[in-house]
Amino acid sequence: MSLEAAMRRAIELSERVKGTTYPNPPVGAVILDRDGEVAGIGATEPAGGPHAEVLALRRAGERAVGGTAVVTLEPCNHHGRTPPCVDALLAAGVAAVRYAVEDPNPVAAGGSTRLAEHGVSAEAGLLADDVAGGPLREWLHKQRTGRPHVTWKYAASIDGRSAAADGTSQWITGEAARADVHRRRAVIDAIVVGTGTVFADDPALTARLPDGTLADRQPLRVVVGEREISSEARVLNDDSRTMVIRTRDPLEVVRALSDRTDVLIEGGPTLAGAFLRAGAIDRIVAYVAPILLGGPVTAVDDVGVLSIAQARRWRFDGTERLGADLRLSLVPA
Amino acid sequence: MSLEAAMRRAIELSERVKGTTYPNPPVGAVILDRDGEVAGIGATEPAGGPHAEVLALRRAGERAVGGTAVVTLEPCNHHGRTPPCVDALLAAGVAAVRYAVEDPNPVAAGGSTRLAEHGVSAEAGLLADDVAGGPLREWLHKQRTGRPHVTWKYAASIDGRSAAADGTSQWITGEAARADVHRRRAVIDAIVVGTGTVFADDPALTARLPDGTLADRQPLRVVVGEREISSEARVLNDDSRTMVIRTRDPLEVVRALSDRTDVLIEGGPTLAGAFLRAGAIDRIVAYVAPILLGGPVTAVDDVGVLSIAQARRWRFDGTERLGADLRLSLVPA
Repeated sequence: MSLEAAMRRAIELSERVKGTTYPNPPVGAVILDRDGEVAGIGATEPAGGPHAEVLALRRAGERAVGGTAVVTLEPCNHHGRTPPCVDALLAAGVAAVRYAVEDPNPVAAGGSTRLAEHGVSAEAGLLADDVAGGPLREWLHKQRTGRPHVTWKYAASIDGRSAAADGTSQWITGEAARADVHRRRAVIDAIVVGTGTVFADDPALTARLPDGTLADRQPLRVVVGEREISSEARVLNDDSRTMVIRTRDPLEVVRALSDRTDVLIEGGPTLAGAFLRAGAIDRIVAYVAPILLGGPVTAVDDVGVLSIAQARRWRFDGTERLGADLRLSLVPA
Repeated sequence: MSLEAAMRRAIELSERVKGTTYPNPPVGAVILDRDGEVAGIGATEPAGGPHAEVLALRRAGERAVGGTAVVTLEPCNHHGRTPPCVDALLAAGVAAVRYAVEDPNPVAAGGSTRLAEHGVSAEAGLLADDVAGGPLREWLHKQRTGRPHVTWKYAASIDGRSAAADGTSQWITGEAARADVHRRRAVIDAIVVGTGTVFADDPALTARLPDGTLADRQPLRVVVGEREISSEARVLNDDSRTMVIRTRDPLEVVRALSDRTDVLIEGGPTLAGAFLRAGAIDRIVAYVAPILLGGPVTAVDDVGVLSIAQARRWRFDGTERLGADLRLSLVPA
């Protein structure tokens, strides 16, 4: 297997553990033996469990000697709840380490230098953009800014409406798109809506499996706004925890969630507009259905743009068909 | 070359002559010799000139004997301004004909039967969907319905706005998307706007090359509505012909253009809404820019849908990146 193919495999592995590794980053690792064959794979286990490299090395056993470790993140060099991965790599006798992204965390960094001091060739950059924009995006954002990464998700018709004129919106998108939303809810840390959405739709905001049962992992549910919501609201049921934040200031919400990494805004036009005007959205995920609705109910109203010249430019970083619908992903340009 | 690869080549050839073959369909043909090598290619020339098969056979010469003709449309069997293509195929001595789509025109049809009668194996269906949904879509629609095929094209932000709150819209999309619009204008038969667009934007509605000069072929410009437009309006300049239709009824417009095949609606929300409500749109092409605008100026207002259950379902049949923008194409589901 080529180094690039091994890194793609490591990326896949890391995507699968996204959301389960807090406070550690979701990392994937592949150990290639001397002949370039896959000897072991691993992905970060929940906190306290082994990191990706350690798991992959364990599985590779003797075959790691003289081989290459391919890892999505620079191997850590510090004692946390587990010993440094660099120690494990040195002990296993790998000849080389190829990783995608450098560790921005000063406590954990330095792994590459230490490997080199012990004669192990260590090199960064392999598929770095895919990793930094993919499985590690939210974690890297958190490390760099101290704030959670905020994704605004919405579903709309191609003409940008989130409901028909009479307010009906079930269902704009099809099953595949809705299943994708539930898969995402199961890996994020918190899901935010405004009180308006609670009053209008009374959503449970849970992550459900295709058969309708609850996913193992549920996000923290966050209701934002100054209005009082009913104690009967489904968002307050026992399926997950719920935080009510009595503010309309997006920056206050982001601060209140500062111990989280991956936050999803699923609110209506008012909440989305407030976050966008505050510059508090780091990614947009739009589920676009092949229908036209027209009418007054748009997915977002006031984004703080009066003239075309003021419009903030984003960049499409993903376009995928989900059943009959499209999922568009955008990041700041 | 495989038969499928040959048909793909024929499709490419036909795309290049789209818009230049009226009243004939834009057809592509590839002649494979006995060994499956390309012996000749051709695409329909402007009316009075040779059809695709004849051109390709001429180029193949003796190599056509015992070979296979791969054609996007069933070879014609009637004397129009040129002799039947079936005669040319029989005279050339091909052993087989593979075509994508049957000719729905009763006058021209029967080619396949006549070939078989002369011992030439003739078979329909190769990449039929690609051809029927691609280069021959508009012509087939015209043959079947007697009406021109109508495409609604618009440019919008991801939130469905065609301008910022202050009305500015230059430019929502980037150069690549705008160049694509001009390429399309050069192959369609007519381009329709409402008087509202003429008042608001005073567009010339010409097809221009990337250097700003006029393309060789210009669509008929059609202005629809009951208001009087200024004789100074750019749409009335000498760059192409212009038809003014004093009605707001989309079906009347379609009837007035019944001798055309490929009509493009580039109007604003009012015109687009009227055509959509009348069920007079056969395809939607949306240029979507990675920006958010918010505010009141949506690409379409009233599409005649009150409740989600009434929404007509479309189907994405193309998603393409054009520079920073996306081009989404939709057809009725």
